[in-house]
Amino acid sequence: MAEKVAGPEIEKLVQLLAKLPGLGPRSARRAALHLIRKREELLAPLAEAMRVAQERIVVCSVCGNIDTSDPCTICRDARRDGSILVVVETVADLWALERAGLLNARYHVLGGVLSPLDGVGPDDLAIASLVARVRGEETREVVLAVNATVDGQTTAHYIADVLSPSGVKVTRLAHGVPVGGELDYLDEGTLAAALERRTAF
Amino acid sequence: MAEKVAGPEIEKLVQLLAKLPGLGPRSARRAALHLIRKREELLAPLAEAMRVAQERIVVCSVCGNIDTSDPCTICRDARRDGSILVVVETVADLWALERAGLLNARYHVLGGVLSPLDGVGPDDLAIASLVARVRGEETREVVLAVNATVDGQTTAHYIADVLSPSGVKVTRLAHGVPVGGELDYLDEGTLAAALERRTAF
Repeated sequence: MAEKVAGPEIEKLVQLLAKLPGLGPRSARRAALHLIRKREELLAPLAEAMRVAQERIVVCSVCGNIDTSDPCTICRDARRDGSILVVVETVADLWALERAGLLNARYHVLGGVLSPLDGVGPDDLAIASLVARVRGEETREVVLAVNATVDGQTTAHYIADVLSPSGVKVTRLAHGVPVGGELDYLDEGTLAAALERRTAF
Repeated sequence: MAEKVAGPEIEKLVQLLAKLPGLGPRSARRAALHLIRKREELLAPLAEAMRVAQERIVVCSVCGNIDTSDPCTICRDARRDGSILVVVETVADLWALERAGLLNARYHVLGGVLSPLDGVGPDDLAIASLVARVRGEETREVVLAVNATVDGQTTAHYIADVLSPSGVKVTRLAHGVPVGGELDYLDEGTLAAALERRTAF
């Protein structure tokens, strides 16, 4: 009965919206109604923005970032320090680092992490292209900014091994207590890392 | 700096997605990346579904439901019992009742509730058209299926008053303990209503 309520067009919209991360079937329904109610202010511009994205967005052939140009804005930015290469798992991580605005470096997006259980091996990630970049460019340091998960750290170790013949300096993000974090809520691994790497006050 | 990361097209998409209920700035970013990654399976069909929705979806001039035809599928359905009219606040509520599949009646969407503080008066809701429908059609019962909020109940009382000259039977949803609900988590109003209307076991 539910599919017949409002015609297949709306159901189709709801079903597709429900595939977005963060939206379930119920919130997709609410989002669809919101879109239909705000036809001029939201539905039309969003449909247009998606059409433009579909048409114009490409993956950067150098670093794996997404942009409307290839190479991407970051890779083409001459003011960036090309001697530091920050390796991230996903474009979302790249954006997170850029939002923090701490780095003036270049990036390399792996496209995931090694995960034997999920059948993800080195050839499924942008590791060969990373080695080629390190060999070809003026890279002096590779910062492994992968997630602090088991798979992330396994991947970091693998990449450090693969890069070791090139003699490039390989670093990784520090472990420790998050700023604003309460000790009571932290796992033992984080506490151990924070204690071990304690610094003078 | 953040706006420059990936070009204005992606930022525009993120900003529009963030306006959907249920998506904040961070989840909108994740949704945008997901859309771009699933360009063929999701981005293109969703853009198309939104274009179709924008073009074809209309508000039913009889009941206020949204559909691709006017009158809507429900209003045109001859098998529906036209003697019962279920009054709801929003199309989302109509859909919720239809999903439950309990009713074979017709609907009337108010488009909100009376709310003097927000400047919503009787003329802002589909109350005049409800009175006209009750007068013109073969309605025998009006079920006020509005939310059990203060504004919802105020609106229900107002509508019951307005309809009283017509002599139509006006009912409302029962109050009580939700099925599966735990008493410990219920407010006193619900408990009082459930106690007062207790039934023989």
